[in-house]
Amino acid sequence: MPAKQSLNERIEAFKKQNLSLDMTRGKPGPEQLDISNGMLTIVGENNVHTPSGLDVRNYGGLDGFPEAKRLFADFLDVSPDEVIIGGNASLNLMYDTVAQVMSHGTSGEGKPWLGRKIKFLCPVPGYDRHFAICEHFGIGMIPVPLTDGGPDMAEVERLVRVDPAVRGMWCVPKYSNPSGVVYSEETVERLASMKTAAEDFRILWDNAYTVHHLGGGPARLKNILEACKKSGNPDRVLIFGSTSKVSFPGAGIAVMAGSTNNLEWVRGRLFFQTIGPDKINMLRHVLYFKNMQGILDHMDKHARIIAPKFQAVQEILERELGGKDVATWTEPYGGYFVSLDTKPGCAAAVVALAGELGVKFTKAGATWPYGKDPHDSNIRIAPTLPSLQQIRTAVEVLAVCIQRVSIGDSA
Amino acid sequence: MPAKQSLNERIEAFKKQNLSLDMTRGKPGPEQLDISNGMLTIVGENNVHTPSGLDVRNYGGLDGFPEAKRLFADFLDVSPDEVIIGGNASLNLMYDTVAQVMSHGTSGEGKPWLGRKIKFLCPVPGYDRHFAICEHFGIGMIPVPLTDGGPDMAEVERLVRVDPAVRGMWCVPKYSNPSGVVYSEETVERLASMKTAAEDFRILWDNAYTVHHLGGGPARLKNILEACKKSGNPDRVLIFGSTSKVSFPGAGIAVMAGSTNNLEWVRGRLFFQTIGPDKINMLRHVLYFKNMQGILDHMDKHARIIAPKFQAVQEILERELGGKDVATWTEPYGGYFVSLDTKPGCAAAVVALAGELGVKFTKAGATWPYGKDPHDSNIRIAPTLPSLQQIRTAVEVLAVCIQRVSIGDSA
Repeated sequence: MPAKQSLNERIEAFKKQNLSLDMTRGKPGPEQLDISNGMLTIVGENNVHTPSGLDVRNYGGLDGFPEAKRLFADFLDVSPDEVIIGGNASLNLMYDTVAQVMSHGTSGEGKPWLGRKIKFLCPVPGYDRHFAICEHFGIGMIPVPLTDGGPDMAEVERLVRVDPAVRGMWCVPKYSNPSGVVYSEETVERLASMKTAAEDFRILWDNAYTVHHLGGGPARLKNILEACKKSGNPDRVLIFGSTSKVSFPGAGIAVMAGSTNNLEWVRGRLFFQTIGPDKINMLRHVLYFKNMQGILDHMDKHARIIAPKFQAVQEILERELGGKDVATWTEPYGGYFVSLDTKPGCAAAVVALAGELGVKFTKAGATWPYGKDPHDSNIRIAPTLPSLQQIRTAVEVLAVCIQRVSIGDSA
Repeated sequence: MPAKQSLNERIEAFKKQNLSLDMTRGKPGPEQLDISNGMLTIVGENNVHTPSGLDVRNYGGLDGFPEAKRLFADFLDVSPDEVIIGGNASLNLMYDTVAQVMSHGTSGEGKPWLGRKIKFLCPVPGYDRHFAICEHFGIGMIPVPLTDGGPDMAEVERLVRVDPAVRGMWCVPKYSNPSGVVYSEETVERLASMKTAAEDFRILWDNAYTVHHLGGGPARLKNILEACKKSGNPDRVLIFGSTSKVSFPGAGIAVMAGSTNNLEWVRGRLFFQTIGPDKINMLRHVLYFKNMQGILDHMDKHARIIAPKFQAVQEILERELGGKDVATWTEPYGGYFVSLDTKPGCAAAVVALAGELGVKFTKAGATWPYGKDPHDSNIRIAPTLPSLQQIRTAVEVLAVCIQRVSIGDSA
């Protein structure tokens, strides 16, 4: 470990650079946005019909037209009658799903959750927006540790078996936000088949990064809908996905999948909520990607752009922190984040110090329910938006801050 | 009135034509869609920034970028800080607003409505989708008759004064669906200033047809937000609008407006529900229309296309039914519908008979809460989608059916 003096000197040197870097959110970089530009004008005045002849410019089609359902059925590894096409973001579909359960109950019990004692299992570290939805609706959250193969299943099985108030669970099963973990085959099977005290336990399966690898193609993930069906729990899982980080964030296509019974339940809300999603944008995606292979080819281009950024994070962290016993971090094969753990009690101070040096990281604690990391150790690194040089600088700042905070004022 | 025999002959003749005409929904016709085609490709790879320099292809902007807010503030006759830009349909914004009140209460009381006895006033005839939202959430509905200047205000004032469970009201204030009524200045003032037993009474002001005239420009409508502010009830009204029938249905821009307090309340939900609306589509609208004058010029084109269709409805109805005392109908200056009333007890039979002849009209009763028209007299005619010739045929069928059903089996 370098002496405090040497770290202080580096910190002073960073201060003089007047840095202003943002590593907070999983946003694609501009080069990534450019590779989808061809989609912007692919639907034009001579090209406003689906392959089967529907004019996409008018009302109609509550849950997507057939060609879009086929494409996104492949995307989510389900059949076309198990897919609903939504609006521009899967967060919206997830929020609306929880809102529906609050006011109308699940497709099983059909009794509103609002005002009742309901709890969700939340693998940690996890996605702050999932936790925020629970907090908004007063759903209690129970953190469950993530292991290399997914949530600690012994703990999950214990919690769902003993407590009927545990009614649901958030999962980001592939390249989990922020740890990059891919759920193992065994994890998926145990989630599908576990005995739950609640008869209508629901898994909100946010497969946000299903095709978002960093080279070498997407990891294999066992099909949870099939596993649920085989275990006699077809309605247990609701699957979400989107093209937010495939085409354009905020102007992509969001999709959800599940048993035909669950989708009937969703349509039972959609009928009242909307006339239907934006079919013009749906057609842009269908014409641009053509089929699943088109999406996979496209994701290879994304991987070529962002893999060097992830490599830079690993390189700088290893160079600065390797062998120093002040932090551990993940080395993901996909997704949008690197998850780093400092020694307990350091994360908030590290993020604050980096902020003083002009480098913003996601608020410490954000990866835990209620924004409270009991160990104060987890920091989420989002390396896609800044340039390679900016990332190298930002991670160097982070590493210096970690070392400095770890020393404390004692040395 | 022609003899039953002559009407029966005409009915037989219609049968032989094997008609298949759809007059059910307020959908623009294909020529109307064509006039917005230039919008489809206006955002291209060299043109992805807002006038003030924001790249619309990435995340960010919960409620719209400034240029869009300026345009739609003019559209809704409010100031830019009183506008929120939503997704692709105002129905969605209205549903989500009611859903938010159910789970979190209004910006006033802040106590969930779910499970409580809540009632809405529903001017009739009205829009079936409004009534469906109430039914979905278990909100009771009290029909209030529409007069030429808007809802019967004496009745409205009486109901809101005596019953604290009356917490809200649906209004389509300009070219009302389906009657075409424009609320008078006095109506708007009385709605804004009336004493209500419920402290946080809410008016859901669906200004769906604010610019949708049939020639001669949009009717004047008194600014209800201003009137509410003047009366000391700034939070009473939530205003909705969209470009669904300006640009593309399902691929337009939905907007809502209200007091800054109400909009804070809406944003308090939006933060949890979405990362933000589709900014690429927002930019298409900003670049294509440029300003409010651009929208008004565009609506003149719509008027030139659909006015002859509305004239055809009037002409056929007058020719077939004029002076026969079997029906009355509205003669709107805007909007998407003609509202027709048969003699009591005839509407369902008329719609059924027309259906047998291959001409679909909106289900009788649809314009009333719970789909139940106590007089069984109202029929909604939607003349925009079919061609002029089809409309002439469809309305002729309707008129013959009205005459035949009015005679009954007695003559």
